[in-house]
Amino acid sequence: MIDLSCDYNVGCAPELMAALAAANGTQHATYGFDACSARAKEKIRAAVGNADADVFFLVGGTQTNATVLAAILRPWEGVISAASGHIAVHESGAVEATGHKVLTLEADEFGRLAPGTLRAYLRSFYADPTYTHMAQPGAVYLSHPTELGGLYTAAMLREIRALCDEYGLRLFLDGARLAYALASPETDVDLPLLGGLCDVFYIGGTKCGALCGEAVVFREKQPHFFPAHKQRGALLAKGFLLGVQFDALFTDDLYLRLGKRGAESAAALREGLRALGVPFSPESASNQQFPVLTAEQLEKLREKISFEIWQSYPDGSALVRLCTSWRTTADDVAAVLEALK
Amino acid sequence: MIDLSCDYNVGCAPELMAALAAANGTQHATYGFDACSARAKEKIRAAVGNADADVFFLVGGTQTNATVLAAILRPWEGVISAASGHIAVHESGAVEATGHKVLTLEADEFGRLAPGTLRAYLRSFYADPTYTHMAQPGAVYLSHPTELGGLYTAAMLREIRALCDEYGLRLFLDGARLAYALASPETDVDLPLLGGLCDVFYIGGTKCGALCGEAVVFREKQPHFFPAHKQRGALLAKGFLLGVQFDALFTDDLYLRLGKRGAESAAALREGLRALGVPFSPESASNQQFPVLTAEQLEKLREKISFEIWQSYPDGSALVRLCTSWRTTADDVAAVLEALK
Amino acid sequence: MIDLSCDYNVGCAPELMAALAAANGTQHATYGFDACSARAKEKIRAAVGNADADVFFLVGGTQTNATVLAAILRPWEGVISAASGHIAVHESGAVEATGHKVLTLEADEFGRLAPGTLRAYLRSFYADPTYTHMAQPGAVYLSHPTELGGLYTAAMLREIRALCDEYGLRLFLDGARLAYALASPETDVDLPLLGGLCDVFYIGGTKCGALCGEAVVFREKQPHFFPAHKQRGALLAKGFLLGVQFDALFTDDLYLRLGKRGAESAAALREGLRALGVPFSPESASNQQFPVLTAEQLEKLREKISFEIWQSYPDGSALVRLCTSWRTTADDVAAVLEALK
Amino acid sequence: MIDLSCDYNVGCAPELMAALAAANGTQHATYGFDACSARAKEKIRAAVGNADADVFFLVGGTQTNATVLAAILRPWEGVISAASGHIAVHESGAVEATGHKVLTLEADEFGRLAPGTLRAYLRSFYADPTYTHMAQPGAVYLSHPTELGGLYTAAMLREIRALCDEYGLRLFLDGARLAYALASPETDVDLPLLGGLCDVFYIGGTKCGALCGEAVVFREKQPHFFPAHKQRGALLAKGFLLGVQFDALFTDDLYLRLGKRGAESAAALREGLRALGVPFSPESASNQQFPVLTAEQLEKLREKISFEIWQSYPDGSALVRLCTSWRTTADDVAAVLEALK
Repeated sequence: MIDLSCDYNVGCAPELMAALAAANGTQHATYGFDACSARAKEKIRAAVGNADADVFFLVGGTQTNATVLAAILRPWEGVISAASGHIAVHESGAVEATGHKVLTLEADEFGRLAPGTLRAYLRSFYADPTYTHMAQPGAVYLSHPTELGGLYTAAMLREIRALCDEYGLRLFLDGARLAYALASPETDVDLPLLGGLCDVFYIGGTKCGALCGEAVVFREKQPHFFPAHKQRGALLAKGFLLGVQFDALFTDDLYLRLGKRGAESAAALREGLRALGVPFSPESASNQQFPVLTAEQLEKLREKISFEIWQSYPDGSALVRLCTSWRTTADDVAAVLEALK
Repeated sequence: MIDLSCDYNVGCAPELMAALAAANGTQHATYGFDACSARAKEKIRAAVGNADADVFFLVGGTQTNATVLAAILRPWEGVISAASGHIAVHESGAVEATGHKVLTLEADEFGRLAPGTLRAYLRSFYADPTYTHMAQPGAVYLSHPTELGGLYTAAMLREIRALCDEYGLRLFLDGARLAYALASPETDVDLPLLGGLCDVFYIGGTKCGALCGEAVVFREKQPHFFPAHKQRGALLAKGFLLGVQFDALFTDDLYLRLGKRGAESAAALREGLRALGVPFSPESASNQQFPVLTAEQLEKLREKISFEIWQSYPDGSALVRLCTSWRTTADDVAAVLEALK
Repeated sequence: MIDLSCDYNVGCAPELMAALAAANGTQHATYGFDACSARAKEKIRAAVGNADADVFFLVGGTQTNATVLAAILRPWEGVISAASGHIAVHESGAVEATGHKVLTLEADEFGRLAPGTLRAYLRSFYADPTYTHMAQPGAVYLSHPTELGGLYTAAMLREIRALCDEYGLRLFLDGARLAYALASPETDVDLPLLGGLCDVFYIGGTKCGALCGEAVVFREKQPHFFPAHKQRGALLAKGFLLGVQFDALFTDDLYLRLGKRGAESAAALREGLRALGVPFSPESASNQQFPVLTAEQLEKLREKISFEIWQSYPDGSALVRLCTSWRTTADDVAAVLEALK
Repeated sequence: MIDLSCDYNVGCAPELMAALAAANGTQHATYGFDACSARAKEKIRAAVGNADADVFFLVGGTQTNATVLAAILRPWEGVISAASGHIAVHESGAVEATGHKVLTLEADEFGRLAPGTLRAYLRSFYADPTYTHMAQPGAVYLSHPTELGGLYTAAMLREIRALCDEYGLRLFLDGARLAYALASPETDVDLPLLGGLCDVFYIGGTKCGALCGEAVVFREKQPHFFPAHKQRGALLAKGFLLGVQFDALFTDDLYLRLGKRGAESAAALREGLRALGVPFSPESASNQQFPVLTAEQLEKLREKISFEIWQSYPDGSALVRLCTSWRTTADDVAAVLEALK
């Protein structure tokens, strides 16, 4: 059975397990002050091209989103997000639980918050004479890739950054699946660009080859994020557990190599499905593919691979998600395409 | 200048000012334990037809909405509201500031949350396999009248109540302008119905003839709402200030009589405008009327009355709000209609 | 029966009731944008001696404390308070409900936070190697008078301000009973001093002659306090209700004159009790007096005046609170002293 | 260098690392619905002797404390804790950040909340006529062992449980170092007792041999804790990471065996130090020992072992913490004692 159901249902890349095993016998400083974490942070600063970047390792995505937003928003502010954004839908109200409204805007077909949509909202918000009676926009939340595997272009991100500057908003980018975005054959977005544009973003580990862990990168020093993330239960006593993993991920470009496997197998899958005349909704450029399969195709696939039904239609067809990862091989892709022939 | 701009820009009904002045020299028990408050609560229990109802006097609408919802929701729950609901738009994120998501559904043309919309949402929510990753629906928020002056029918409220029972939701009704709803010539909703159907609702004072104050009516005894509303800064040290007012409002049906003035003048206004061929959007049955006026009509009106532009159109016409209140007279209405002829 | 039980159990000073009645017939801008509020703010700025001060009118004390602290604290910060401070004891956890810890320090015998205590705490806090694992001190909360009627001296306030500057703390002073402090025969603290030293403080109305209302004075412009206090339910739709009262209070020094009545009658009471050999605990300099009365004295007093027992002792004696106010007369004081002879 | 500085500065027990490595290649259900987690929960239910217990795996201690308390407290409630309790001091205000006050009581010399102290507080709380103006007690927080290594007796826990029943409080026990408590030669508290007395407690993994992870055990089914802990960022996408570890910990009594190593080496250390005439403050019965060492003894120790200074005294002596763990050997203890001779 080939697994295309999800990118967080196996452990970690063998390199990380080896590093964890190697680090297991020895003593480490606690709460992230260990040498592995220091090394990992240094490597991430280099990869981002910002020697001043402040890096923290948190455990998971929802925790990171809520903790970062709670730290950068002022009490009367909300965060702007695509209506389909993870914080708006699938985090059980975690952002609201910290006291902040998620201000949702219609996403484009790729799940992205289009700069034009953002601009129109901001203009109309401040044009409304009652705007001081509303939750004030304080930050913009993007995910890259989006929930639908969509990728922002560098131009879109620059335009959003310009709007943030114009309206006094902080820019936060959720990179839970960032490896697959960075490694997409179709992207012009890289780590230094994100490090330069975002006030804060995170480099996802959990879905990109780690056991757990997300590396939060602030553009500027954060004198208070230590108690801020301790307060949200996001500070690991054994922080070296995360440092060891990110140290390995940022050694010899492992992070990008893992991302490449997921992104390239997704691209091959897309090309193959397209050749078979399969439509997409949408046709994304990262590791999540959303083809619409006929009843017959679904039946064929079910025997060979595990995947998720996104939406079922009355005629038996369905929009499905085929999710590749750092573990997906060329053989897996070939087998899927073969099954559909 | 006739004032149809809003229903909270003058003081209180003369009866209330007289009562306040009369009560001013004497000593009262504090924090709502005074005799006036006790009397007012007794009268409200009688009006609602529920001897077990627990009544509290709070100061204003946003405070009441946030305080009540924070008390009845569990941490992981959100509150369902029409997308145009006051808590969703115009309370600066007050509900979110207490940790709860506002779950917005499309309203009908009158700003109401249609039972069918609610049912469809609840069914689809629990049919979604990821529903435990979302904020859980915990309560339904209605306002009666709605932001657009719309009124629920008794049948709609009963259907919503049945859905609440089916799905374990509490029902909360915001009655900031309740007097104008109860006194509408077109309603079949009265206080005993609300007292029977709602877990909690409030009888608005601020917009219905009081200086300030909202009477929160719980269907059942609330052993903990005292510290709960103290904690939100919603407990007035001089609670008798509210007790005196509600005592007056519920003496000799003053509350309904004040409502009637607003509702009847609105009905007369509507009839007159309709006779002049003026369209509405929507045509509401309470004290807020939303006619669409031509540029010429707007110009005529501006000299005689103050009102709010809701939306301007390119051709110079506009959707306006004409808001009557307990102070609006038949002469006012006649003058408006005369001006438009 | 002479009432020395409390300073918030009657309505407002006649001047305020007259002003409210006079303002009752006319139309006012809403949400605090009315002319009365503007006038009141201007007068308060003049009284404080700071043309840049930003003034807001809120309704009650707990609301004001929680709303202001939530606006000036960052999420990871707590507020330092005397352990006997109102926010630490009698606000049902209102500050914590906004997400912030109240960091309590031992008060001196007058309920004051002594500068030396504050300095020792701050030094030891930052000397503790685990300090980043604790709630960070973000503000200092004082009340003047304190819960025990104690008054800070100008020197103490200056020393506390210097500590705030040294440690990056904001200084917030709760002036619920400020009139009685400002009018104390023994104080060297006046409004300009408070306006110069405090980042924010409030001039209490509720306990000093108003029906309700507290005037919050920020040393600097607050571009975001409008949505911040709307969000906490602390923005009154009919803000003119508060503006009218503070306009009257700051006309012809009414606020100080009302304070003087309470403070002078308390001073006379104290002197008289002292002459009778009655001990105090503590001997405060504002409108709350805390004498320890024998069983016999208690019996005598009970027939003539209402007051609160603070603590009962096994021998039948008790520490009581005699609370004067703007309504207390020289005759009242004479009657109390006469009763005890 | 022998490490007695802390019990969370190395990875996990070899058995757990082996289990993690073995589980690494295979696919697991996500969000804790995997077979390992199911197995681990079953074993924990058996160990606790409660087939109805509801078990959840969270990541760390502060996260667990805040998440559980936020789920079991009502908004107006606080949690009672020893003043030296971890939630009161070293969690950066995490509980307050969820809106709840920590109500601190004086601990006994072992850091325990004595039943008598609790009873006296509850009696005096409800005897205070202003109690409804305070944060209401909603739960009791204990840690076992305490911050000072102290252990509750079964009798104390039963007495506290009885008080909880009498006053409507939930009982929550923090077992971050539970293994060392359960394995103490001096305890009469075991898992079934905790499972029967506590509404909820947790079995600490991080400090007791796991890489990370705490097993939260509720006495009754919790239909809503899934969204509740998702909302606090405490739900791990790869929940099997925790399931695998707790499955190993609860196989062949590994958890107790690991605890025994820490507890027995601590007991041997204590006995040896006592024989050398070293005083303790306090003399605890679990894996943390708090001897007071002379300047000379400190110097000798520093060459051989790493440990933490708890408090330094002017004469050069110091109260230190010697913290054993599942890794401490009899040889380690012998070396420490030898060094001090």
